[in-house]
Amino acid sequence: MPQGTSENKKYLLSLEASGREASVCLTHGRRLVAQYFQDSGLTHSATLMKMVADILANNALTAHDLEAVAVSNGPGSFTGLRIGLAGAKGLCFAGDLPVYTVSSLEATAYSLTGFAEDARDGEKSPFEGAILAPCFDALRGDVYGAVFEVRDGVPRRLREDEAQSAEEFAGVLAELGRQCVIFGDGADKVRLCLSEKHAGLPQLVLPQNMRCRTAFGVAAAAFEKAPQSAESAKAVYLRKPQAERVREEQAAKEG
Amino acid sequence: MPQGTSENKKYLLSLEASGREASVCLTHGRRLVAQYFQDSGLTHSATLMKMVADILANNALTAHDLEAVAVSNGPGSFTGLRIGLAGAKGLCFAGDLPVYTVSSLEATAYSLTGFAEDARDGEKSPFEGAILAPCFDALRGDVYGAVFEVRDGVPRRLREDEAQSAEEFAGVLAELGRQCVIFGDGADKVRLCLSEKHAGLPQLVLPQNMRCRTAFGVAAAAFEKAPQSAESAKAVYLRKPQAERVREEQAAKEG
Repeated sequence: MPQGTSENKKYLLSLEASGREASVCLTHGRRLVAQYFQDSGLTHSATLMKMVADILANNALTAHDLEAVAVSNGPGSFTGLRIGLAGAKGLCFAGDLPVYTVSSLEATAYSLTGFAEDARDGEKSPFEGAILAPCFDALRGDVYGAVFEVRDGVPRRLREDEAQSAEEFAGVLAELGRQCVIFGDGADKVRLCLSEKHAGLPQLVLPQNMRCRTAFGVAAAAFEKAPQSAESAKAVYLRKPQAERVREEQAAKEG
Repeated sequence: MPQGTSENKKYLLSLEASGREASVCLTHGRRLVAQYFQDSGLTHSATLMKMVADILANNALTAHDLEAVAVSNGPGSFTGLRIGLAGAKGLCFAGDLPVYTVSSLEATAYSLTGFAEDARDGEKSPFEGAILAPCFDALRGDVYGAVFEVRDGVPRRLREDEAQSAEEFAGVLAELGRQCVIFGDGADKVRLCLSEKHAGLPQLVLPQNMRCRTAFGVAAAAFEKAPQSAESAKAVYLRKPQAERVREEQAAKEG
């Protein structure tokens, strides 16, 4: 759990760069202070740290006001993950801060529910009882997907993050047979499989501001984690880079 | 409807400064390109135009890439509304652009559903059938409130924007007797009245990233409006400024 819960709160900076979107956010304890989001197609290497500088300056803060950095460490775009992690590590090395790493799929689930500790008895999340099925396009017909169920306002994990074909992931959801929220940039592929190969499922469809990857989701997911040293933070790719796959396939052919 | 729907699309810049939050967003047609949000307590006069400059620069755009500006024109903080409108008018005068003004309450309703034209047959919004009751704290026990019903994924207005006591607004909702989403910085007051004076209502409670005022809601609401000239855009305060009320009360006493 971030140190933001301690008495003398400073700010948690969260970064999300695992997909096409870039997002940074500042939280103070469990309060969302600011979030910047963009999906411009520009490279994260040019935009992410500029967004960090702007969000700090525009809120009259500096890097000295941070107590930790959270970052989504995969699955997702290999380059995006490296840029997000490099940015987080840089900030943490310089400021001697701990880092929180969270699954990018889990972060999108938390972006729909917010902080687990904010879920209060007797209050009903719009997603209560629903299956959350975030999935990202992993190219070549594959998706990165995970499955959560919202109980008492909190996403509870039903399936680990996995790289699989869109058909396989659709099959997993069809088997559950529950109302689900399929979202993320792999959702269209999975929906197509559901309608073609299965009878379909009752689905909740999100407006675009709720279905994108945001740093607020990273902050909310990080709140459930333990901090680690910047040195030990690593990307979780779930599969090998394209270049390695090609080399192995060639080696197998030649072998 | 914004010119963004025309063939040769440029960008719509939307501003939201009617409350404590400041938010700016860029849309291209109906695509959310970027949104910056902050709730730092800093004055909008210092932050809003800086956020505009940053969101344009960070997306490799300039004011010349805008085709129109949208702004929420009330109800809300008198000073905030003036800053938002002044910023919108300045940009529009300089670039000879049309402006779209939208109700700040209606904008928060659209922030939960997105663009009306994105609502597709057979897809179910998480809020389908619910009553959306955005309400802002208007001080002195009052709230600014409005009521919408989500039908076919679109917020349909049931009640106009109104300044009223929290009790009155709670009474309106109690009479409807439907599952509702009460949100905005007046929500706690209204909920208290509902639980104290009425039997309560089934309620959906939003995480904080969904219940704040965002410029994306302004953009989505603006899509249903006609453009107007920057000269003709005016704030809708719904009640007189504190200074005028005090003067009138004193005049009545002395009279």
